[in-house]
Amino acid sequence: MLDTTGPRCDTDSVLAARLAVSATAAGGEAMSDLQFLDWLDDRRRTHVQEVRRTTFAELSGWHFAPDTGDLEHHSGRFFAVRGLRVRTDFGPVPEWCQPIIRQPEIGILGLAAREINGVLHFLLQAKAEPGNVNGVQLSPTVQATKSNYSRVHGGSSVPYLDCFREAGARGHRVLADVLQSEQGAWFLRKRNRNVIIEVGPEVEATEDFCWLTLRQLGALLHHDDLVNMDTRTVLSCLPDWHLGPGGTPAAHSDVAVRSWFTAQQSEREFTADPLPLREVEGHGWYRAEDRISHERGLYFSIVPVDVVSKRREVASWSQPLLEPHGLGVAAMLVRRVDGVPHCLVHARVEPGYLNIVELGPTVQCTPENYAHLPAAARPRFLDLVEGARPERILFDTVLSEEGGRFLNARNRYLIVETDEDIRADVPDGYRWVTLRQLGELLKYSHHVNVQARTLVAALRTVEGLSGADHR
Amino acid sequence: MLDTTGPRCDTDSVLAARLAVSATAAGGEAMSDLQFLDWLDDRRRTHVQEVRRTTFAELSGWHFAPDTGDLEHHSGRFFAVRGLRVRTDFGPVPEWCQPIIRQPEIGILGLAAREINGVLHFLLQAKAEPGNVNGVQLSPTVQATKSNYSRVHGGSSVPYLDCFREAGARGHRVLADVLQSEQGAWFLRKRNRNVIIEVGPEVEATEDFCWLTLRQLGALLHHDDLVNMDTRTVLSCLPDWHLGPGGTPAAHSDVAVRSWFTAQQSEREFTADPLPLREVEGHGWYRAEDRISHERGLYFSIVPVDVVSKRREVASWSQPLLEPHGLGVAAMLVRRVDGVPHCLVHARVEPGYLNIVELGPTVQCTPENYAHLPAAARPRFLDLVEGARPERILFDTVLSEEGGRFLNARNRYLIVETDEDIRADVPDGYRWVTLRQLGELLKYSHHVNVQARTLVAALRTVEGLSGADHR
Repeated sequence: MLDTTGPRCDTDSVLAARLAVSATAAGGEAMSDLQFLDWLDDRRRTHVQEVRRTTFAELSGWHFAPDTGDLEHHSGRFFAVRGLRVRTDFGPVPEWCQPIIRQPEIGILGLAAREINGVLHFLLQAKAEPGNVNGVQLSPTVQATKSNYSRVHGGSSVPYLDCFREAGARGHRVLADVLQSEQGAWFLRKRNRNVIIEVGPEVEATEDFCWLTLRQLGALLHHDDLVNMDTRTVLSCLPDWHLGPGGTPAAHSDVAVRSWFTAQQSEREFTADPLPLREVEGHGWYRAEDRISHERGLYFSIVPVDVVSKRREVASWSQPLLEPHGLGVAAMLVRRVDGVPHCLVHARVEPGYLNIVELGPTVQCTPENYAHLPAAARPRFLDLVEGARPERILFDTVLSEEGGRFLNARNRYLIVETDEDIRADVPDGYRWVTLRQLGELLKYSHHVNVQARTLVAALRTVEGLSGADHR
Repeated sequence: MLDTTGPRCDTDSVLAARLAVSATAAGGEAMSDLQFLDWLDDRRRTHVQEVRRTTFAELSGWHFAPDTGDLEHHSGRFFAVRGLRVRTDFGPVPEWCQPIIRQPEIGILGLAAREINGVLHFLLQAKAEPGNVNGVQLSPTVQATKSNYSRVHGGSSVPYLDCFREAGARGHRVLADVLQSEQGAWFLRKRNRNVIIEVGPEVEATEDFCWLTLRQLGALLHHDDLVNMDTRTVLSCLPDWHLGPGGTPAAHSDVAVRSWFTAQQSEREFTADPLPLREVEGHGWYRAEDRISHERGLYFSIVPVDVVSKRREVASWSQPLLEPHGLGVAAMLVRRVDGVPHCLVHARVEPGYLNIVELGPTVQCTPENYAHLPAAARPRFLDLVEGARPERILFDTVLSEEGGRFLNARNRYLIVETDEDIRADVPDGYRWVTLRQLGELLKYSHHVNVQARTLVAALRTVEGLSGADHR
């Protein structure tokens, strides 16, 4: 009657083995690599989406609230752009004001898994988003806000949604299900449900969907601007299939890592108070007819766009997007110690985090935002990453962030092997943790930030670093 | 060079064995049970604290802010009483306003452990708090807000604080370290660092402190109003020493429990917006010269008090306290299935939770607050708990909540064995989980609420329910 649920029970081992097969098997794919590329080209031709910049005055369905100046949808749903005042004892700037996207609804990022030809496949969607540089990218099976799926905007229903909202009733198996944050510099306390469900053969791929193995997904992750942010974050929540029975050694014990994380949350002074958007103007930001921007041209702008699409739930709509200025860098330094890969994570304070601090990559910044600050404010380890010799760079791909909210938001994701002495002191706020420890933290909300989650997904595709040699 | 940190590594097993010895050993105690009671009587005579009700006008150091009507300390620190407007689709009342305590600082609840005579002991403090019904209770080694330990109020330094703030530098071992919430009905996003550190023989008990074994602490937990809330919550974060190697069976797998918790967080509509305290007046609450109360006399009042003490950091001071109306009930239904104890937890929405939902006991309420509501609003399972036959009641003790913020706040804590069919459907929002699963969730913030944590600490002291028979 009862399941066995020890941390190393049989079903977990069996699942890990099945994932390992999916991550390595060549043969048995529902669609060959070449067929996939043809299919993707075809989807890109079908999903042509026209995105045109407009003015706030012409932005249909949106207005600046008379009392606060907040940019809101007339329904009161979707999201809003508000102001935030931040005070902190951490980082080069002790106080600032900024616009921020408030989206209190918890959306679903759902990935369906299914065994085909004896190999686990995952159901991806070719989806165009207005903010994508290249239109269509690969999104998870379901990528929907509550406003989407409760049809506030009167669109068509969300395919496969019931796989995730009624998984138990359908007898499907949950592989992962956890709330995770998104960009804390741009979103106020946004989080999405990252959920992976194994379904049965009755679930089939419809027109815009395709089944891919983990090997195929891992290879596609190395293509610029292809696997979208939502897919990457859900993938990072998949149980790590590289782990054998028994623990792997680590520089710091699990409880020591959690304790360090707790100390980082506890010792920082940090407040982020909502502010009417109007009050952000004059504190470094200004509003023009077609943008809200920083006076120095830094950080990001809020820009209004019109979108025309034949393939979305709604054929045409208008919305604001957040347009970051400059290409970001998100880099993880990794070091094998006794053969076990360790990552140098950084406890980051971002104003939109629910919990003050989350673990980010070693380096996460937009270098040009630091040009006006003193040299001491330059992000730690950025020089080391930018100066890395090519043979130490294990992953180097430009990937897009959420195209439904951000316009042309791209980061260069890097994994850089280093000889840094793991026993040496690291700066306050940094810690060497193993990939297994990151995987444990990913089972619980708000420990690993969205940029680090992309790098966890990427790390699992890097040969020789995955810890597979320690089974 | 590297530690082994698997979930069942040697050091964890050794720690569990040492905790088990501490929980059972008779002999080797630093202070015998009788000596302890004498010592406690002595401390109670020493720490006489005079608490006198006063008026807001005479409340020294506190004022109602002119713009908001919030009740604040003139330093801007400590805590404040503000307003909150809550809207939810869950529970019998869809919208309400209420006063709430805002204390954004993260305090430390620290418990020092040390081996004495080969048995682990824990360092407890005899501490008087103004809101305690009986003056002195047993607090953890350190119970301090940041205002306390950074000496905003000019008091003396906090003993043993450095054991917790500089554990690593002193070579001490962390046994637990996690942020946990407190009462979500009374506190807005309050959390404390629950931390347990094993120290060396250089740390000795000074005047108001005593070393007790887990067996002694467990026995004292059955005394009314003795082990204070802070001690109970820290104790619940101690690794569970009842678990042997390998997993124990459970009604639901770990990932299924986490998935259910995620669904509970995701599917609820819930907003809690700060409100000037002044605006709460007229929405069911009124302010008199010596209290802020609900018009029907329900829930709680905010009352100003003067305190005179010879033994606190500051000899006399004034402060508001939250005085709940009526004795609360916090009860956990437990059921052994195949010998494994399961608890029926309830996913509770409380307005002050950072994360919308935390797992509470099966029943958590103040029965008289429901007298004016329809019968359908009566808390589930309350009748079952109140009607339980004496031989099914495994724990039944009245315990106090935080006496530094609450005046005479007491709950009757119950553990009730039931024959409920664990396979049968439970109401939405309830789930059977094992004690081991609760212990796993307690390693991470904001999963198990403060009332359930008291019951976890209590469950581990109940013979035959602890799962020890499954090693």
